[in-house]
Amino acid sequence: MHRLIREHFAPEFALEGLGDSALISLKSGRLAYTTDSYVVSPIFFPGGNIGELSVYGTVNDLAVAGAMPLYLTAGFIIEEGFLLEDLKAIVSSMAGAARRAGVKIIAGDTKVVNRGKADGIFINTSGIGVMMDGLEPSPLGIKAGDAVIVSGQIGRHGIAVMAERNGITFDPPVLSDTAPLNGLVKTMAEAAKGIRFMRDPTRGGLATTLKEAALESGKCMKIKGSSIPLDPRIRGACGLLGLDPLYVANEGLLVAIVEANEAGDLLEAMKNHPLGKDAALIGAVEDGPEGMVLLETSIGGRRILDMLEGEQLPRIC
Amino acid sequence: MHRLIREHFAPEFALEGLGDSALISLKSGRLAYTTDSYVVSPIFFPGGNIGELSVYGTVNDLAVAGAMPLYLTAGFIIEEGFLLEDLKAIVSSMAGAARRAGVKIIAGDTKVVNRGKADGIFINTSGIGVMMDGLEPSPLGIKAGDAVIVSGQIGRHGIAVMAERNGITFDPPVLSDTAPLNGLVKTMAEAAKGIRFMRDPTRGGLATTLKEAALESGKCMKIKGSSIPLDPRIRGACGLLGLDPLYVANEGLLVAIVEANEAGDLLEAMKNHPLGKDAALIGAVEDGPEGMVLLETSIGGRRILDMLEGEQLPRIC
Repeated sequence: MHRLIREHFAPEFALEGLGDSALISLKSGRLAYTTDSYVVSPIFFPGGNIGELSVYGTVNDLAVAGAMPLYLTAGFIIEEGFLLEDLKAIVSSMAGAARRAGVKIIAGDTKVVNRGKADGIFINTSGIGVMMDGLEPSPLGIKAGDAVIVSGQIGRHGIAVMAERNGITFDPPVLSDTAPLNGLVKTMAEAAKGIRFMRDPTRGGLATTLKEAALESGKCMKIKGSSIPLDPRIRGACGLLGLDPLYVANEGLLVAIVEANEAGDLLEAMKNHPLGKDAALIGAVEDGPEGMVLLETSIGGRRILDMLEGEQLPRIC
Repeated sequence: MHRLIREHFAPEFALEGLGDSALISLKSGRLAYTTDSYVVSPIFFPGGNIGELSVYGTVNDLAVAGAMPLYLTAGFIIEEGFLLEDLKAIVSSMAGAARRAGVKIIAGDTKVVNRGKADGIFINTSGIGVMMDGLEPSPLGIKAGDAVIVSGQIGRHGIAVMAERNGITFDPPVLSDTAPLNGLVKTMAEAAKGIRFMRDPTRGGLATTLKEAALESGKCMKIKGSSIPLDPRIRGACGLLGLDPLYVANEGLLVAIVEANEAGDLLEAMKNHPLGKDAALIGAVEDGPEGMVLLETSIGGRRILDMLEGEQLPRIC
């Protein structure tokens, strides 16, 4: 264990010595703090792997809370016999992801369990970030008339993983959208003061995040299906796999709810950022029916979107 | 998942809504930050369970770093089919442990994996704490002549778990020493200004922690075997199980290295605290041989203590 940490983890991360706690100094006293465990299967998928996913996922949780992510911890649970090469690849891609996101992984832990008692590798990350000035998104701030925006194409991560799991290949391949959203959020915060709410639609997809926003705000989300950015290949793959793209996980996407008169400026700023180039206005907030998400389908029908019951895609992240 | 969190986790913990990040405000800017995953088997053992262990373990990492622990996150990886009653018992004991340690569990995450892909439940916790004034223990501060102190009986956690695993019972039972050390550390910091180093000898036991202190400081730890607090029942159990008590895990114990002229005051203060009543001076720091731990055995021999190679007790925490 000591050798593993010394030789493979310490050089890649910013671990401070081999003590258990890292010391940090922060200017501001307002912090966001979060954690997530990653159990994605397979651990390597088109466009990413469990390592960078575990960095970006936690970075994104902080970013959509309105915080600039600064420090991460990483806890590994490794099944005996797991290939050292795979571990090295994962750790190295975590280090690269941390660099790209501008965060430091400053504390870690590794536990090994017997063969058959885990599935390769599970990673937990936690993260802290400093709240950005003027940004404190909360579902309680959502008001009737607000605009609902999504930052890009939906369904890419889930389809990339499910295709890999089922041995389906696309040409060109469908890649996971796994990416750090903190740069996009910073751009957004500079472009608009009236951002009420942000969340990244991971497990459960866009529909689940919209339903959470509706329930937590007590408002109604009225969504126009034809406005939701959806790559025809993703649509086709969903048909093939029997999945609803609205419920498929994303890992580099966010939903933002913003004051209507700022929606134009915000969208323009988002479209100028590489991770927001397909951003779109997809609907509006109404007062009621409370807690509901109403989808206007492309053929003019209306569908009520509910939270996903059970897991459409187990171990997607 | 939503129901699980809403019904069982949110009422027990201090989760702030169901968003992913928790917001915290801190007065001081100097923080300690740590993480640990817990994979102990069995998950219930005499004197504790994986839940309180996951709280106290992280609390203790912060405490021995010289920080007052404040906030924790908890990430659960649960095997499908895991008993809801067991989950409730674990969550409830985490909540109790957090109360006793004076910390808040403010963010959490749950992932479920298929049957056979994990072993019941794994828990990761991370924690942040504010550095206590005048306390910044570091192996680099260790000097020749310093006193080496251990806070209590060694080997209790490891033996409690191993006995349970092997179906051995003691009458009265040997209980794990799992406990939060932050109160003891606070008492210690008030009693002595010259605390150079603290660490909790968990995996790898007392010998491994002493070896780490020797290696990281470049000094020699000269230890008197007969001074190490060791319950005869633990000694007997170790004989029975073929274990060396010096390498058996502890979960409510710390090693402190302190300026020699403060050792008396520090020991007295420790003995007045319930978790330090068996505290003992077990040796002294010498300049060399560098990085060595020399144990003077009770029959007058000398033994070199090395780090544990491999795991004497896999999945002990």
